[in-house]
Amino acid sequence: MNNNEMVLGIDIGGTTTTFGFVDRSGKRLATGVISTEAQQPADILVARLQGEIATLQATLPPRLQLQGIGIGAPNANYRQGTVENPPNLNWGPSTNLVELFRRHYDLPVVITNDANAATLGELYFGGARYMKDFIVITLGTGLGSGIVANGELLYGASGFAGELGHTVVDPQGRQCACGKTGCLETYVSATGLCRTALALLAERLEQSPLRGLSYQQMTAKQVFLAARAGDPIALAAFEETARILGMKLADAVAHTGPEAIFLTGGLANAGELLLTPTRRHLEKFLFSAYQGKVRLLLAGMPEGTSAIMGAAALIWHEIEKVG
Amino acid sequence: MNNNEMVLGIDIGGTTTTFGFVDRSGKRLATGVISTEAQQPADILVARLQGEIATLQATLPPRLQLQGIGIGAPNANYRQGTVENPPNLNWGPSTNLVELFRRHYDLPVVITNDANAATLGELYFGGARYMKDFIVITLGTGLGSGIVANGELLYGASGFAGELGHTVVDPQGRQCACGKTGCLETYVSATGLCRTALALLAERLEQSPLRGLSYQQMTAKQVFLAARAGDPIALAAFEETARILGMKLADAVAHTGPEAIFLTGGLANAGELLLTPTRRHLEKFLFSAYQGKVRLLLAGMPEGTSAIMGAAALIWHEIEKVG
Repeated sequence: MNNNEMVLGIDIGGTTTTFGFVDRSGKRLATGVISTEAQQPADILVARLQGEIATLQATLPPRLQLQGIGIGAPNANYRQGTVENPPNLNWGPSTNLVELFRRHYDLPVVITNDANAATLGELYFGGARYMKDFIVITLGTGLGSGIVANGELLYGASGFAGELGHTVVDPQGRQCACGKTGCLETYVSATGLCRTALALLAERLEQSPLRGLSYQQMTAKQVFLAARAGDPIALAAFEETARILGMKLADAVAHTGPEAIFLTGGLANAGELLLTPTRRHLEKFLFSAYQGKVRLLLAGMPEGTSAIMGAAALIWHEIEKVG
Repeated sequence: MNNNEMVLGIDIGGTTTTFGFVDRSGKRLATGVISTEAQQPADILVARLQGEIATLQATLPPRLQLQGIGIGAPNANYRQGTVENPPNLNWGPSTNLVELFRRHYDLPVVITNDANAATLGELYFGGARYMKDFIVITLGTGLGSGIVANGELLYGASGFAGELGHTVVDPQGRQCACGKTGCLETYVSATGLCRTALALLAERLEQSPLRGLSYQQMTAKQVFLAARAGDPIALAAFEETARILGMKLADAVAHTGPEAIFLTGGLANAGELLLTPTRRHLEKFLFSAYQGKVRLLLAGMPEGTSAIMGAAALIWHEIEKVG
């Protein structure tokens, strides 16, 4: 290992953009954060970032050479280098972010979506080291996923492999923001959990602290706290979420045969309240050849750092492929 | 290309076992067939095959050197080299077929299931040459599948990746021979089509030539012929089969992002009667990022030869990986 090499990992979110220098062993050398200013065009963000990055780099020993830049961003297309119709950024239909960075840096620049970055973070620095076949599921506002098979992250022909959030649970089911109906993420995500809790409040009559909350007010955290306090509606919402997640993860196993599935993102903080029933349902839905062979785990990367680390892993991965 | 090299492809079925010598370009040099005698143990079959193979090889120019043996067999585990609980062979829970062959041949021997062999046949000699991401679906008595991603056939951690026939369509649905409920192959396969036709006969009252057929008598061919003649029950059975296939193929696309999906096996002979409505449903269920980007095609390998060719492709693939 060359101790004079480092990469830059950047995570672009709707509110903040975080960045950090990371060495080959996964050690973060320095990190920074700026507000994304989502209403501004992408080139303004890149220009602002360049200044901040230079300032941060000046704090590090000059022997450390920057080898490349990895970026995690919503709706990023790895093959095209573009961000397409990002839901929380006013960037328009397609922005070639790789090109914008390459105007400032004569270095390899690679981009991928948040879930894929988290998956590479898990592969390089987290719980999936030495695994060749695994899946990472990010449970936030939506459901993202990254699939590693034969030791490689899958991008597919289109650059968009691993969109498990838009597999179908019920063709007559809930409306999804994507325009389809019954997508997995309308049931299994922070938002999906709240929708399920709300539907259960409509269906059943038990007392519940959730009865005082509007659709707009309710958060997954509140459903979690109610469930932990024994609220039957909240517990039933977790059970139903786990049933659907277990069922669809069994489908995912039948595709790529992973040895483990990692959960991450806000809803994964529910821990065993979500994991235990999901494991039970997963096992029940698994084809016999897979039963007892697939572990369901929490991601090994600490949540606050996983975004930068994933983006850093992305570019280390790319450099390794080339060299 | 070395013109003095050839491999042996073997396809073990419940009734017959076919085998053939195949060169690197996919040319079949000589083929043979024997009855499998499914009641006999596996080592008897291997010993009988050895004699037949020697006889066949003697008909070929001696300059042709055998490089390895590829075998397609039901319930074969690529990683273990075993055939496990084959439904139509009296071989018991687990037979190490690779070991049995290696007793007779000091050559690389590789085994995989029928659907994976068909997939490699498509990759090497069929319609998927130059494709890095595609899926093959075999529609016979059941539904088998093989997935190629990043140019590699997926085996998964367990050696059993690509069991799409056992993804779930309806958790309260039809009983599957595998012990689960609502598996895809109980709806989409030759058998599944007949079950759907029978259910429609129970539900509806139109005249149909299928009304004279028992569960035991009905075949997918008869449903196909009735549909082609305009029978509304048979047409509705194809439409429902296509709806479910399109829905689950859209899920498969959301996993590995293939550029094409190939159908093969007996039911694929229905051609456009199955393809046209399946394309319509697939497109409807696809996540927007994939719409218009995935082709649904018939497999390019002629059906009679695909088994041997797939097994030959398997061992060529293996030899190429090593050397």
